Amino acid sequence: MVRRSDGATPARRATIRDVASAAGVSIATVSRILGGTYPSAPATRNRVLRAVRELDYVANAHARALSGSASKTIAIIVNSVISPYYAHVAQGVQAQAAEHGRLCLIATTGGDPARELATMRLMREEHADAVILVGNVVIDQSYRDRLTEYARALAAAGSQLVLCGRPPIEAGVPAIVVEFDNTGGAYAVTSHLLSHGHERILYLGHKPGFTTAEGRIAGYRAALASFGVRHDTGLEMRGTFVRSEGYRMMRERLDSGPADFTAVFAANDQVAAGAWQALRECGRRVPEDISLVGYDDLPPAEDIGLTTVHVPHEELGRAAVRLALEREDGAAGRGHLMLGTHIVVRDSVRPARRS
Amino acid sequence: MVRRSDGATPARRATIRDVASAAGVSIATVSRILGGTYPSAPATRNRVLRAVRELDYVANAHARALSGSASKTIAIIVNSVISPYYAHVAQGVQAQAAEHGRLCLIATTGGDPARELATMRLMREEHADAVILVGNVVIDQSYRDRLTEYARALAAAGSQLVLCGRPPIEAGVPAIVVEFDNTGGAYAVTSHLLSHGHERILYLGHKPGFTTAEGRIAGYRAALASFGVRHDTGLEMRGTFVRSEGYRMMRERLDSGPADFTAVFAANDQVAAGAWQALRECGRRVPEDISLVGYDDLPPAEDIGLTTVHVPHEELGRAAVRLALEREDGAAGRGHLMLGTHIVVRDSVRPARRS
Repeated sequence: MVRRSDGATPARRATIRDVASAAGVSIATVSRILGGTYPSAPATRNRVLRAVRELDYVANAHARALSGSASKTIAIIVNSVISPYYAHVAQGVQAQAAEHGRLCLIATTGGDPARELATMRLMREEHADAVILVGNVVIDQSYRDRLTEYARALAAAGSQLVLCGRPPIEAGVPAIVVEFDNTGGAYAVTSHLLSHGHERILYLGHKPGFTTAEGRIAGYRAALASFGVRHDTGLEMRGTFVRSEGYRMMRERLDSGPADFTAVFAANDQVAAGAWQALRECGRRVPEDISLVGYDDLPPAEDIGLTTVHVPHEELGRAAVRLALEREDGAAGRGHLMLGTHIVVRDSVRPARRS
Repeated sequence: MVRRSDGATPARRATIRDVASAAGVSIATVSRILGGTYPSAPATRNRVLRAVRELDYVANAHARALSGSASKTIAIIVNSVISPYYAHVAQGVQAQAAEHGRLCLIATTGGDPARELATMRLMREEHADAVILVGNVVIDQSYRDRLTEYARALAAAGSQLVLCGRPPIEAGVPAIVVEFDNTGGAYAVTSHLLSHGHERILYLGHKPGFTTAEGRIAGYRAALASFGVRHDTGLEMRGTFVRSEGYRMMRERLDSGPADFTAVFAANDQVAAGAWQALRECGRRVPEDISLVGYDDLPPAEDIGLTTVHVPHEELGRAAVRLALEREDGAAGRGHLMLGTHIVVRDSVRPARRS
């Protein structure tokens, strides 16, 4: 008997023989019912379909392999491809998949957990060699449980779950993790502002509970502490990681009274671009009046001359594919990789003026 | 007998009964051979697999539908998601697909025709409700033939091919076309420069044979003709539609002698951003010394204040999904939609100075 996919130890892939045995019918009956071509008693059909679900039997695997059309694919699941962050990771996945003769499928969820789950199911059915899940999530227990179950089902089907830009789930769960250093980068770029004499640094993009956001604000706070600068929670503005939110947060701040800061750390470059527009509209120049830094080193950072933190996005995607395929090939493989980040200095920071 | 997918009139989807009849075996034999569970004579097996291929029979459809896991998907095939152009069309597809309860899969080809073909095959096997092919292609006869064959195979399988941002293949081919007006937009933005007194307008991004590029340069030339300005092919620089190419073309031009132009029309906003960087590095200011316009109205156009042509990218993606699903529902549906474009005036154009 094959272990069920939610059991502790994923075993070999279930066969039609296992389904027949679990349902108490002949192999021919399973074949006919899954083929959908012969009439069958509802009770028998239900028994067979239940066994298929419980064993995670994938009915079309053999047919596909036989007909010579088995496509090797790598799947990547992201919120949206409009965000340059996801697009660049996906580009790395595509490039590395091509080197290994795999097609790359990108699924977008719009940030909807129900769509994420439906997409993960679809990818398992499609026998993707690896499923790469990218980005920022709220870590709560129900999500963690669902992901654990999914990682085990994928492993049982001979595939790999890769978490990209997110922390590990927990020990013993069969998932590869490729992360980058959010806290280190945020520490470095905040230190860059502090070493230019800025002590009142507005932080745009506080999102409690989200992994990426938590990592970045932790680096900001740690740098303040290292420089002996008082931590003022009034300087931490809540918002999400999109351009329009950067604009909104900065407008709200500027409209609410005189600027009580000399520099701004935007949680990513999109937020920085929106904030820059708001500053411009309110007659404040960057960097002459206000210094501004971002995070990611993605468009439009280069075009607007933004000092920021470089994240190796394409390499994240490439590493995710490499580690997944290494493991598939039976190599021991690394299960956890942390990529470094570094500051890119452009022209958006000036020394603070003494007031 | 079902017509073959390469025949002239696609008919209903082939069933296991058709395969059995074509191969001269029983339905149970087809089911067993496709199930891969029973031994079978190689000659019989070959006959069945040949019939499967010839009839475009998709073996896993029934099993999937029965097991309750039939996922409705819309597929979109693009060169790359790094390009904001593709990313924004894909975003529209995803949003509209979600409204219809469909998942959205994005496949990237890296511009490789072999990968495009492999991806199209995979999507047919996966029973995507629609396959949306986006972007710019070289129109040659072999590509046209391949696409025609593919459109027919998809239609025979009850799906839809949608060509997005490309012209129709030819009359009688079952494909929906959603285009936007490249020539009209290029005419309008070139006229904008001409009406500011610019007569020497450098064109960056000439790509003979590519549909989008041909449409844009045609609008540029038509506007020159309308204003009675001499067409100088020496002002048309060849290059592709990426930022680094915009930089390269402008550097080459500036390094080769004194500027013999007062304005620049970049074939898209990415090219404009690269050209702007090259101008900056060579000490030329936009718009004080040189006027610059782009095409697309995508990042970083807003951030750098670029006058450009707005293309309704998300609406392109949404329309592609709507038209495909309307047709699937049996409505007559429109087969060809042309969306309009319009200029967005920002701050990158000044009147030409008399020399």
